[in-house]
Amino acid sequence: MTPVEPETKKRSYATAITLGMLLLVVLLTCVPYLVSIALAEGPAPDNAADASPIFGVTIPAGYKQWELIAPAEEAPPLDELRAVVGNQTAIDAYQAGKLPFPDGTILVKRAWKRKQSPEFASATVPGVATTVQVMVKDSKKYAATGGWGFGRFIDGKPVDAAQHRTCWGCHEARAKSHDYVFTRLAP
Amino acid sequence: MTPVEPETKKRSYATAITLGMLLLVVLLTCVPYLVSIALAEGPAPDNAADASPIFGVTIPAGYKQWELIAPAEEAPPLDELRAVVGNQTAIDAYQAGKLPFPDGTILVKRAWKRKQSPEFASATVPGVATTVQVMVKDSKKYAATGGWGFGRFIDGKPVDAAQHRTCWGCHEARAKSHDYVFTRLAP
Repeated sequence: MTPVEPETKKRSYATAITLGMLLLVVLLTCVPYLVSIALAEGPAPDNAADASPIFGVTIPAGYKQWELIAPAEEAPPLDELRAVVGNQTAIDAYQAGKLPFPDGTILVKRAWKRKQSPEFASATVPGVATTVQVMVKDSKKYAATGGWGFGRFIDGKPVDAAQHRTCWGCHEARAKSHDYVFTRLAP
Repeated sequence: MTPVEPETKKRSYATAITLGMLLLVVLLTCVPYLVSIALAEGPAPDNAADASPIFGVTIPAGYKQWELIAPAEEAPPLDELRAVVGNQTAIDAYQAGKLPFPDGTILVKRAWKRKQSPEFASATVPGVATTVQVMVKDSKKYAATGGWGFGRFIDGKPVDAAQHRTCWGCHEARAKSHDYVFTRLAP
């Protein structure tokens, strides 16, 4: 038998345990959220071989789950169907009509060769995947290129530096009024 | 001063409080999950005016956040860009290459008039939104139409019964080998 404690001390003992356990449960419950956010938004592991030359941009993990911004079509010779998706920062900025895009914005363009649907004469559908193209907004790191870093990937590997040198010139010349981003949110 | 309690009774009192609070916290923590699942997967409120004739299919809430299955293009006279997205049941079935699609599968096709990009001569981008088309798999409810219910919507409102009578005939005639679904998962 332990010494008798006053009722108040007993209560505060129970309260402390309860609060401690509450905190633990809340923290543990957050883990799946944090993991899913990290998987959805985070860049791929920073493997130099997988990062674009000049910019060091990688293909972000989980981008196929990101929300669609717009599809597009590119005439021959590229002859492609495309779809641009964005992370939540991008989607929020698009929906708010907010320019420039905030740091942390990531846009990913998927592209496929155009292919005649075998089942429907008037329909064109995705053929083989061609490139994945990534734009990352970091106004300090990429200050020399409008705040944007670029990555162009074929079969998951970045194309060469010469190709990456062409990105900024075209975006700068043609899309300045929309923070150097061509794609608009599809209505 | 209350009567002195044995230490064991005091401990079980604290334990009961702790477990009760834990249960409460876990339940409360589940609420946002359940709400987000309901918003992401659930059909829109069953408003008869918003449901398609014949099938009673509605536009599912939150479908714009669903994962892209594939973009497509439709030649004139429709002259459209399209994007088909699916709920998690649909995505899981596509990724597993599983046919027929399980009950609960929902596919949504968004469509826009094709528009010349004002910034890039070779690019075609979405113009005005035209239709939203929905397929819902329920093998019992829609047994007469391959397990699929159809909905075709303009400005959020279903088109007439005559148009809805044309859905099944075309899907049945042309896409039987793929459980009556035209769209394949883009690689």
